[in-house]
Amino acid sequence: MSLKSRSLLALTTFALSTSPCLAQSKTPIADTYRATADRIISTAFADSSAWNRLAALTDKFGHRLSGSASLERSIDWILQEMKKDGLQNVRGEPVMVPKWVRGAESATMISPRATPLHMVGLGGSVGTPAKGITGTVMVVKNFDELTRRAAEAKGKIVLFDVPFTGYGQTVRYRGGAANAAGKVGAVAALIRSVSSFSMQNPHTGSMSYDTTLKVIVPAAALSVEDAAMIHRMVDRGEKVVINLKMSARKLPDVPSRNVVAEIVGSEKPDEVVVLGGHIDSWDLGTGAMDDGGGCVAAWEAVKLIKRLGLRPKRTIRVVLWTNEENGLRGATGYRDAHRAEIDKHVLAMESDNGVFNVTGAGITAGEGGLAIATDIASLFSSFGATTVTAGGGGADTSPLTALGVPAMSPTVDGTKYFWYHHSDADTMDKLDPREMAENVALLSVLAYVVADMPGTLPRAPIGTPRTR
Amino acid sequence: MSLKSRSLLALTTFALSTSPCLAQSKTPIADTYRATADRIISTAFADSSAWNRLAALTDKFGHRLSGSASLERSIDWILQEMKKDGLQNVRGEPVMVPKWVRGAESATMISPRATPLHMVGLGGSVGTPAKGITGTVMVVKNFDELTRRAAEAKGKIVLFDVPFTGYGQTVRYRGGAANAAGKVGAVAALIRSVSSFSMQNPHTGSMSYDTTLKVIVPAAALSVEDAAMIHRMVDRGEKVVINLKMSARKLPDVPSRNVVAEIVGSEKPDEVVVLGGHIDSWDLGTGAMDDGGGCVAAWEAVKLIKRLGLRPKRTIRVVLWTNEENGLRGATGYRDAHRAEIDKHVLAMESDNGVFNVTGAGITAGEGGLAIATDIASLFSSFGATTVTAGGGGADTSPLTALGVPAMSPTVDGTKYFWYHHSDADTMDKLDPREMAENVALLSVLAYVVADMPGTLPRAPIGTPRTR
Repeated sequence: MSLKSRSLLALTTFALSTSPCLAQSKTPIADTYRATADRIISTAFADSSAWNRLAALTDKFGHRLSGSASLERSIDWILQEMKKDGLQNVRGEPVMVPKWVRGAESATMISPRATPLHMVGLGGSVGTPAKGITGTVMVVKNFDELTRRAAEAKGKIVLFDVPFTGYGQTVRYRGGAANAAGKVGAVAALIRSVSSFSMQNPHTGSMSYDTTLKVIVPAAALSVEDAAMIHRMVDRGEKVVINLKMSARKLPDVPSRNVVAEIVGSEKPDEVVVLGGHIDSWDLGTGAMDDGGGCVAAWEAVKLIKRLGLRPKRTIRVVLWTNEENGLRGATGYRDAHRAEIDKHVLAMESDNGVFNVTGAGITAGEGGLAIATDIASLFSSFGATTVTAGGGGADTSPLTALGVPAMSPTVDGTKYFWYHHSDADTMDKLDPREMAENVALLSVLAYVVADMPGTLPRAPIGTPRTR
Repeated sequence: MSLKSRSLLALTTFALSTSPCLAQSKTPIADTYRATADRIISTAFADSSAWNRLAALTDKFGHRLSGSASLERSIDWILQEMKKDGLQNVRGEPVMVPKWVRGAESATMISPRATPLHMVGLGGSVGTPAKGITGTVMVVKNFDELTRRAAEAKGKIVLFDVPFTGYGQTVRYRGGAANAAGKVGAVAALIRSVSSFSMQNPHTGSMSYDTTLKVIVPAAALSVEDAAMIHRMVDRGEKVVINLKMSARKLPDVPSRNVVAEIVGSEKPDEVVVLGGHIDSWDLGTGAMDDGGGCVAAWEAVKLIKRLGLRPKRTIRVVLWTNEENGLRGATGYRDAHRAEIDKHVLAMESDNGVFNVTGAGITAGEGGLAIATDIASLFSSFGATTVTAGGGGADTSPLTALGVPAMSPTVDGTKYFWYHHSDADTMDKLDPREMAENVALLSVLAYVVADMPGTLPRAPIGTPRTR
């Protein structure tokens, strides 16, 4: 059955029936692969090798910020380890990445009470003069309030004390605080960390400047606790003065690499299932959750297939993209380097939501893709991960999906994701060996089945936007 | 009914029946006070005044370590505010307290990877030479392992990586790590923070030296994350070297005060119900939970009685003890200053477990006390706080209870107490205005009823040890 006819069948199935069960019964992929899937799953659950490997990676190298020596050293180590695992075509594919350096930084409350604050500069921010910027704090609850009270902002440090109501809504302040503050004549921008729970751990993340603005001001995040305290002080009529010191600076781009390794397909080696995570992280904590876990889960998923002596018809390629956090250069670089073979990419999977308790997967594909994925996911009933929902993939697969490549990603319990995200608390102990093994099992089975099954998933519509 | 006969009745009731219900029906205290209790409770729930007052206290003064200027300034402010509230006999009762000063401190991993660690010195520790102490880390899981491997410890920095299994079991390592390490020739002691969940926030707390030892070594806590990482490194066979710098020092004792204020009783002013918390804190975070919340809850409980124009027969006295954390000098000082009237103390209550969701109260008293308290607690059915259990009071009431004074304390949901305890994360946002108001209501009703009811609670056996 050709690629095209398989897709048409799936499309037809979907069109004729809204019942996933019916669709499933017409695409008995799961039945064909049940024995192999069970072998993969039980092997994944037999030890804590994925968790241990991630611990070794994060303990040895710490954070992996784009442009850092620790990122490149960790890539060197992974390439060596992948060769030891017996993977094929192990290589680093060159990509130029931004180099933003944090340097020393601090925020100190001067009045009404002298105390150091819990702060981190936002990624991409400019620095301050060496003596810092000292200013009275103006607290606003949102962009609208700043617009209304613009006349008060001149010379002030604006603090956006915005409660977390979901990443999408709240992260706009991380991205846009500096521009909004600069526009009204403020001297610096502070935000309440974008986080759903805090233990005095401030959270960084990327921001960017509107280059049409004349005034460029530095931007930093305070801990949720400190932002709330300052807000209370201002509400009581107290004048809050802060000194902000940041030696952050942007240097010229430097070389990095996407990590690539394969199991070459036995019958259709030019057709490719891609799976991976992003190997770069922010420079707080060790990036165990974001996204060391996704990288090692994908890597171990492929290693498991190799170790079991399985060889699918199509090629399985693990890709650990570089520079997701502050540039997406790894993802766009991969797309550009592999543009000639994008039509042969039958699936791109990314794990970038933390390798927590997995409940299933998300999929972005053409009509009928959901039903096929639901059929395959029935193989995960032993660990309760059978639910497939529309919308899958990650930031790094999005340039591929925009060109039609179907995308998937594990669906996980994200309750605590934004507790740790981009902060010092993103460390190994937040991940559980068994939960991580479940992510490995799911990725491994999905990769193997899609790389080996007779047909392929229906292509995503060209121009599909990033879902997350 | 005299004090003595009331106690005998209670004893008899208890002896004749093991059913709290039956005991309750024979001591219908709740019925007499229901209308008044409902007024107190509804007033406590009408606003967030307790939470707001605690926010003002902690925002204005920050931490309140014994011997610090911020402790004494906060006491000055509380005394002023208590006078504004119209409380009687508002005063600071002098107590000398220890002065331990943390100073600058750091722990830096030198190998296998250079990185700053998340550490805090333990309260009472000596400092290090200015250049710090550099040593190879020896990790042990408990005291027994150190004893077994004593020969390896000479010149090492010993890390006790002890998982949290409950405060009582685990805090022994905070108290005893330095002595155990010094005894076997180690140069410093580190512990995994005594905490049930961590986001890179290390936890301090008191330790003390066995003065018979020849070698006195400094002691500090690492974050749970860093302790676990070092343990993994050592398990992998890596040599971990740390530089520990601490400028901690102990200065001569300085004056502090117990805060005392009253509503003088209308008929038996020499009989006293005491309630309070401890006003000192550790020097991390703002001591909002431990124990600013307990102090303000007790204070607001008494203010509420005053505000409602209630005047019980006996005196109600709020006491905010100083120096609970590293000396208990406030508690022993109060006992000594009031020794002549201890027999007239009919109840001592302390709130020092966090003003979280309250489920009832604990009581330490003579036989029959539990039944009486259970009767009174039936007044808390509107907010589900009717469960009374054996064992009540706090560290500061323990010297009184040892002399026979019945003790009580609110029972709260302590799930997250050791997440924040003695760390930077002990801040206002961890407390909920409604939950705090419930603690105020419970303390206020208990204080009023026990200060006004015909009899008194049976005395605790002389020599009753501290229950917590």
